[in-house]
Amino acid sequence: MGAIDGKTYTHRIDQLNNEVWFDGKKVEGPISEHPVFKGILREKAALYDLQLNPEFQNDMTFLSPDTGNRIGLSYMQPKSLEELIKKRKATALWAKQTHGMMGRSPDYLNTVLMSFASSSSFLEGKENCFPENLTAFYKLAREKDLSFTHTFISPQVNRSQIYIESSKEPIALKVVNVKDDGIVVKGARLLATQGGLTDEVLVVSVGRFLFNEDEAFAFSIPSNTEGLRFLCRDTFMGGMSRFDHPLSSRFEEMDTIVAFDNVLVPWDRVFYFNNGEVAEEFITQSSFHAFAKHQVITRQIVKTEFLLGVAQLLVETIKISDYPHIQEKMAEIMVGLETMRALLEKAENGAAPDKYGVMRPNVIPLNVASLTFPKLYPRFAEIIQIMGASGMITLPTENAFHSPIRKDLDQYLQGATKSAEDRVKVFRLAWDLTMSSFGTRETQYERYFFGDPVRLASQFYWDYPKAPYADAAGEFLGLGGAE
Amino acid sequence: MGAIDGKTYTHRIDQLNNEVWFDGKKVEGPISEHPVFKGILREKAALYDLQLNPEFQNDMTFLSPDTGNRIGLSYMQPKSLEELIKKRKATALWAKQTHGMMGRSPDYLNTVLMSFASSSSFLEGKENCFPENLTAFYKLAREKDLSFTHTFISPQVNRSQIYIESSKEPIALKVVNVKDDGIVVKGARLLATQGGLTDEVLVVSVGRFLFNEDEAFAFSIPSNTEGLRFLCRDTFMGGMSRFDHPLSSRFEEMDTIVAFDNVLVPWDRVFYFNNGEVAEEFITQSSFHAFAKHQVITRQIVKTEFLLGVAQLLVETIKISDYPHIQEKMAEIMVGLETMRALLEKAENGAAPDKYGVMRPNVIPLNVASLTFPKLYPRFAEIIQIMGASGMITLPTENAFHSPIRKDLDQYLQGATKSAEDRVKVFRLAWDLTMSSFGTRETQYERYFFGDPVRLASQFYWDYPKAPYADAAGEFLGLGGAE
Amino acid sequence: MGAIDGKTYTHRIDQLNNEVWFDGKKVEGPISEHPVFKGILREKAALYDLQLNPEFQNDMTFLSPDTGNRIGLSYMQPKSLEELIKKRKATALWAKQTHGMMGRSPDYLNTVLMSFASSSSFLEGKENCFPENLTAFYKLAREKDLSFTHTFISPQVNRSQIYIESSKEPIALKVVNVKDDGIVVKGARLLATQGGLTDEVLVVSVGRFLFNEDEAFAFSIPSNTEGLRFLCRDTFMGGMSRFDHPLSSRFEEMDTIVAFDNVLVPWDRVFYFNNGEVAEEFITQSSFHAFAKHQVITRQIVKTEFLLGVAQLLVETIKISDYPHIQEKMAEIMVGLETMRALLEKAENGAAPDKYGVMRPNVIPLNVASLTFPKLYPRFAEIIQIMGASGMITLPTENAFHSPIRKDLDQYLQGATKSAEDRVKVFRLAWDLTMSSFGTRETQYERYFFGDPVRLASQFYWDYPKAPYADAAGEFLGLGGAE
Amino acid sequence: MGAIDGKTYTHRIDQLNNEVWFDGKKVEGPISEHPVFKGILREKAALYDLQLNPEFQNDMTFLSPDTGNRIGLSYMQPKSLEELIKKRKATALWAKQTHGMMGRSPDYLNTVLMSFASSSSFLEGKENCFPENLTAFYKLAREKDLSFTHTFISPQVNRSQIYIESSKEPIALKVVNVKDDGIVVKGARLLATQGGLTDEVLVVSVGRFLFNEDEAFAFSIPSNTEGLRFLCRDTFMGGMSRFDHPLSSRFEEMDTIVAFDNVLVPWDRVFYFNNGEVAEEFITQSSFHAFAKHQVITRQIVKTEFLLGVAQLLVETIKISDYPHIQEKMAEIMVGLETMRALLEKAENGAAPDKYGVMRPNVIPLNVASLTFPKLYPRFAEIIQIMGASGMITLPTENAFHSPIRKDLDQYLQGATKSAEDRVKVFRLAWDLTMSSFGTRETQYERYFFGDPVRLASQFYWDYPKAPYADAAGEFLGLGGAE
Repeated sequence: MGAIDGKTYTHRIDQLNNEVWFDGKKVEGPISEHPVFKGILREKAALYDLQLNPEFQNDMTFLSPDTGNRIGLSYMQPKSLEELIKKRKATALWAKQTHGMMGRSPDYLNTVLMSFASSSSFLEGKENCFPENLTAFYKLAREKDLSFTHTFISPQVNRSQIYIESSKEPIALKVVNVKDDGIVVKGARLLATQGGLTDEVLVVSVGRFLFNEDEAFAFSIPSNTEGLRFLCRDTFMGGMSRFDHPLSSRFEEMDTIVAFDNVLVPWDRVFYFNNGEVAEEFITQSSFHAFAKHQVITRQIVKTEFLLGVAQLLVETIKISDYPHIQEKMAEIMVGLETMRALLEKAENGAAPDKYGVMRPNVIPLNVASLTFPKLYPRFAEIIQIMGASGMITLPTENAFHSPIRKDLDQYLQGATKSAEDRVKVFRLAWDLTMSSFGTRETQYERYFFGDPVRLASQFYWDYPKAPYADAAGEFLGLGGAE
Repeated sequence: MGAIDGKTYTHRIDQLNNEVWFDGKKVEGPISEHPVFKGILREKAALYDLQLNPEFQNDMTFLSPDTGNRIGLSYMQPKSLEELIKKRKATALWAKQTHGMMGRSPDYLNTVLMSFASSSSFLEGKENCFPENLTAFYKLAREKDLSFTHTFISPQVNRSQIYIESSKEPIALKVVNVKDDGIVVKGARLLATQGGLTDEVLVVSVGRFLFNEDEAFAFSIPSNTEGLRFLCRDTFMGGMSRFDHPLSSRFEEMDTIVAFDNVLVPWDRVFYFNNGEVAEEFITQSSFHAFAKHQVITRQIVKTEFLLGVAQLLVETIKISDYPHIQEKMAEIMVGLETMRALLEKAENGAAPDKYGVMRPNVIPLNVASLTFPKLYPRFAEIIQIMGASGMITLPTENAFHSPIRKDLDQYLQGATKSAEDRVKVFRLAWDLTMSSFGTRETQYERYFFGDPVRLASQFYWDYPKAPYADAAGEFLGLGGAE
Repeated sequence: MGAIDGKTYTHRIDQLNNEVWFDGKKVEGPISEHPVFKGILREKAALYDLQLNPEFQNDMTFLSPDTGNRIGLSYMQPKSLEELIKKRKATALWAKQTHGMMGRSPDYLNTVLMSFASSSSFLEGKENCFPENLTAFYKLAREKDLSFTHTFISPQVNRSQIYIESSKEPIALKVVNVKDDGIVVKGARLLATQGGLTDEVLVVSVGRFLFNEDEAFAFSIPSNTEGLRFLCRDTFMGGMSRFDHPLSSRFEEMDTIVAFDNVLVPWDRVFYFNNGEVAEEFITQSSFHAFAKHQVITRQIVKTEFLLGVAQLLVETIKISDYPHIQEKMAEIMVGLETMRALLEKAENGAAPDKYGVMRPNVIPLNVASLTFPKLYPRFAEIIQIMGASGMITLPTENAFHSPIRKDLDQYLQGATKSAEDRVKVFRLAWDLTMSSFGTRETQYERYFFGDPVRLASQFYWDYPKAPYADAAGEFLGLGGAE
Repeated sequence: MGAIDGKTYTHRIDQLNNEVWFDGKKVEGPISEHPVFKGILREKAALYDLQLNPEFQNDMTFLSPDTGNRIGLSYMQPKSLEELIKKRKATALWAKQTHGMMGRSPDYLNTVLMSFASSSSFLEGKENCFPENLTAFYKLAREKDLSFTHTFISPQVNRSQIYIESSKEPIALKVVNVKDDGIVVKGARLLATQGGLTDEVLVVSVGRFLFNEDEAFAFSIPSNTEGLRFLCRDTFMGGMSRFDHPLSSRFEEMDTIVAFDNVLVPWDRVFYFNNGEVAEEFITQSSFHAFAKHQVITRQIVKTEFLLGVAQLLVETIKISDYPHIQEKMAEIMVGLETMRALLEKAENGAAPDKYGVMRPNVIPLNVASLTFPKLYPRFAEIIQIMGASGMITLPTENAFHSPIRKDLDQYLQGATKSAEDRVKVFRLAWDLTMSSFGTRETQYERYFFGDPVRLASQFYWDYPKAPYADAAGEFLGLGGAE
């Protein structure tokens, strides 16, 4: 079948009838009509529509090497720089459609699955590993345009440095049984964005240190598998008015705890299990980091462009562009944007075929971008807050503009270059981007997208090829050479 | 009558039947029962109850020198250091009751009115000034325990450096007529916190540069004066569940635009009008800055204590106290708290009777605190966000804990030292403090409490007695002395 | 004899003929005439002269309770708040004489010795402890106005977290023999400021974790004790011209490694030895931290006043005070100064008699100041560099002003309010304060005065009474109370 | 003749016998033997030797299109991306030779002259403009491998925003006479690095706002032109010992005030004069910014590599790599390095032929790098200071290691992985890089290389193509479009 349109996607999700719990209630009926989920599902459907839109079809899809089906570009395994760039442009197109506000647009996990599958030969001949399952599943997903959520991390009762789980019942997801028809898992995983709104759940273990073998696995199962439950957090959607909540009415994605109540994973969906060493190494040896970050940073650049636009709109609305400290703050956003772009471009320029024959972007500039953006984004949000000042608080509602007090609002809230209504629209957007419950979740999301920044910086230091620089400095001094 | 209790306060506000517009509708019926306002009104009532609570009555009130009535301490004109400290302790008691989360507890504006009245002799003999009205009104307010909102700033169509209003109809509030029974004003003022929830509206012009004479005035009128309308912003109350919204369900104060539709201010309520020079000087010459900041900083210290408590609770809940970077961040909050305390103490130690015979705190340390807190508070909020990490997003609702999935939550969200429910309570509090729409409004509120930080720093530089230091350095070099 | 004058001090140091090695040569002849040391010795002599100057004598000295001798106030054990303040004022007077640029003015270590002696009863009855020696030595030092350097830290071959010295010969100073006439020590200590320029060397072990018993001791010995060698670092004095090097020509104090080559410490000079527990506890239980920090912060405030003066002089010289970003930077220095003052004042207000009957300043605000100043000072230096811009580089010498090109300099380097010569003086001072080798050593010195900031913050976090705040937050939520 | 070697360069400079004043004395005799200048002249000579070294000749030179002479690559006008990259590699090679520590290696101003000459047709037909002189002079300089200093800025008596020079005698350099054989100029210019150490002085007016026509010119004259005087600042060379002063003994470049005492500029050396409009526009229209920044950023990257090497050497020497906060600081340097590299690469990728047919690098990423590096470099220096801690102070001299105390130093200063001597070498290098008078001048130099950062940020904001972003945000809101 190949790439799907929005209607197909929506219909498929509604049919799955996934077990999703929100605010103490199980979602009943078509989830695409549920007030909390319909906004985001509509935006996702629009993305699927875009890929089959004749105008963009060639930019968004390619033809399957196996079936000739038209396939979404995010599933493509790039073999050349041209293909890598084509893939990135498709990601950028989708990102532009949502202004970078949908963290889990389908291309993110499609790309992740592609990256794993592209490195599947790493698994060959290793204990409890099934590279053929991974390859086959990738092809299946590609041809059916399956959508995914994923869960990489375990619930952490305790974030102290040394912690061993002592609960009798599993908390972190574990293999509790190995049966003829598959493995049985029990426990929970965090923090599946769009959990329940996708065809499948991809579960991969990412362990920093040693972990128990029974927590080391990778598989994918349909979202409606028996025993699978998605437990939603509170919603950050302020309401359905696009005037009042221009972003959260569309882009509130929901995050979920995924509970596995003795869930059977059939063998053909198991990629590996009970192998801690493979679990550790596959993540770093495969092209996962390179491709996942390539997608994410492409989206973050588009989001930064949007943020810059909102900031500039705000500056114009209240005419503050003549203040040097405003110029400096705006320049800060621009510098951040250009820096991210330069790093992405360098990663592409430095791309090289990996040992599996896939054109892998250079990961160093991507890691630099991954260390940089979590500092930039919260600062961008802060800049908008500072520039907006009390205007970020003075926020009448859409209803107020359709009421007898409209004339007061029109008179007293008019902007330098805008009507009161347009001015309030601009400020509500700036607020929804940086100060509403939705906006602050965005900030937290970007701050922690790649994990704990302290650990990321440590890892980056260890991995960086630093010896040549120390050697050169030692040589300058006539020392014997660095340690 | 003197100091009132909560019931009296609530009744009085309900009786006023002020014209308050929220979300396009005029509030009808008792405002204390309106879902958006009942939380904050209940908290305010509790403050009034506290002052008549026999246990605290002596700490919260004093006896009127004129009538012997028992009066709220915030109305007292301190004549000695002991009285100043007694006043500050009463402020701290009220602040503790609300954990510093009510920015406009009644003592704030009571103190402001007291500070103006204490300096009323400044107005004597000046054109269009009525010091006797100010004194009489202060006494009236004091004896009836009136509550206030205030509006100091005009709507700003345009925040560029040079701007002259060109609208035919007034935007900024202006005197449009002078009549036998008073002055008539028209236009709007921003951003009256708790507008419509107080007995009176205090209107004082604060101008940095020259302004039109017709915008230079000070008066107070009842909130239900004809032609007065309070236009609410959107609410930041998430809902009435104290589990889900521990802070916004109680402390969402509302901010309003105040529209004056040809409002008559009777002569006995006019303190001055049409005198730009007095408007400029009264603010700086009176004890306004010293007393207002003394109150505000007292409250901000209590709020910081609360914030420190929440941060420490969070650290304990997920056991992260062994990380040096966590310790450093917690130390940052503690250092901030102690710094604010030291500055407040220095302001009191340096208090001296002003020329009107009132014991005025030293304003320099208070200005330092005013420059410091707007930087500290957003950083404190950021620290809590960073420490809370993904826990700040994983927020199930109260209803979820009263549903079939509770056992999942209990198992998978348990904390190191807390049950799942308590853990979620802690995180929801941390979230409501720093990331909900309510929490970010708090951050913006504290960031801009004292005005534009860039201007405040400039003013501080100009006012600071810096010549002696430059002279000493010049002397060290044998120069002729600084310019 | 009591408090001495400058001539007596200089003579005494010259007579000691300490073994001081500078740039590969042993200092021969009177050290007060050696080009590298004469500047600082002259400044120290001036301090001693000040204390006997009739104008200041009463501010700088008190009468010995034992002998009636006139004694320097830094030796006083304050028993009341008045005495504590009197002591601080004496410190401030000396600091003003040197503009806070002499880190080790005599009062620093006099105060330290006083604080140890004041707590000597802590040592009573403990193994290898000699409180009577400490008391007697304190009295001796006080009556003879002895001057000190000290060494608290061991050479660190390795700063990694776990390190055990494996060298056969001692590196860190150790007790290598216990004899009838005293203990014999061998090894080295860092980083004795003014080593060789004082009567005595005070050696106290400060251990963070467990250390070997043989490294746990406290004693004082004359600087000319046999086997004692002071190994100087390179000098940071730029030269003797006060025009060219207004600060380093006067205040370059020198830092030394102190080598102990089997040095015999006679019993009457041993305060304790071979007792790790006492070494750990005496530092924290005695009034050492409180009094040492009280002295240091007093000096740092005076230094900040000088820095503010230099900054303002620079601003006036090139007329940049109208730029908002300059005002903001200047305000930053002023805020820092006022904050330090408030913390010192709070420490004094909170002073209380300790169990040894001495009026001990409250250590919490002093610790806050100790965490704050190491961040402020480097920022102050940076502000001066940024404001000075290229003027910090354009630095002709004194000789150039006495040469045929003077007319060029006069014409081309004239300042807005200053002659070229005065302008260059101002910039050379700003440069010597923040950019010369002397200036950057000052920055490093203040940055690390109290030790490693990361550890200080951790310690502060642990010590801070934080439970009540967490409890209050827990109570607000209805939790059972913090852990 | 074409590209010269070191001996030729040195001989030529000695022969010029330029009028250089240092410390009140005119330099007499060969300047290459003067203690203050011989270090830097030796390093420059080594650069010239490198370009004729057979191993590097093809990387460092090209054949003159006019004469077939072998010419230094910095003079090449690149016509293709390959040539641009070749040019950058030559710059990098020279920069590596000096570890980026020579700010004014000859390629900097060769490149600047090339960029002006490449845009000379801009001057055609404009008043008082002589494009043919510029072209001819460029060819002359290229074929003779002339070296340059330059002076872009005028002395500023007063840096306030509005300042009009009122001195009767010129302070800023002016045309005071127009004669048959040329123009006569009088006044001074700042801050010519290596003034007196080059063949020529290039003088170009850079004015931000309107300036007097008589200050608007561009020309080049030999350094020994009559009436030209170079007035040196104090030297920052600590001495000639490479052990003690590993950097300043080699790379102290000297900065000079250039006084023009009625200097005649012959017509064939005048590029334009008395034309304010051209002076304003030529700087921005020509390829000056693009090529100058391309060279500078190439050098700054090499310098950052050196700094990273020194930092890592220090980390290894004292074994502190296991501390997370050290890892984080090191990662900060690495991130900075990679960011600068990415920006340079993007500028090259985005290069395009300008209207004069020269392959001009894209200036936006270069401007971003120019805004970024002045913040990065001082932070890098601070990181090294913080990591080095007290080791940055404990600095014995070379002589001390050749004296009887060597055994003490060997024992007490040994490092974890280094002998005492090597450890001290490492720390002296770290100190000379960041804390010596030389090191802090480096920091100031990089901080202000591109001018006042506040103005640069403002300019960047104005120039940035921001409208599309504001439009897109406006479209999202359904507004009419940005202003």
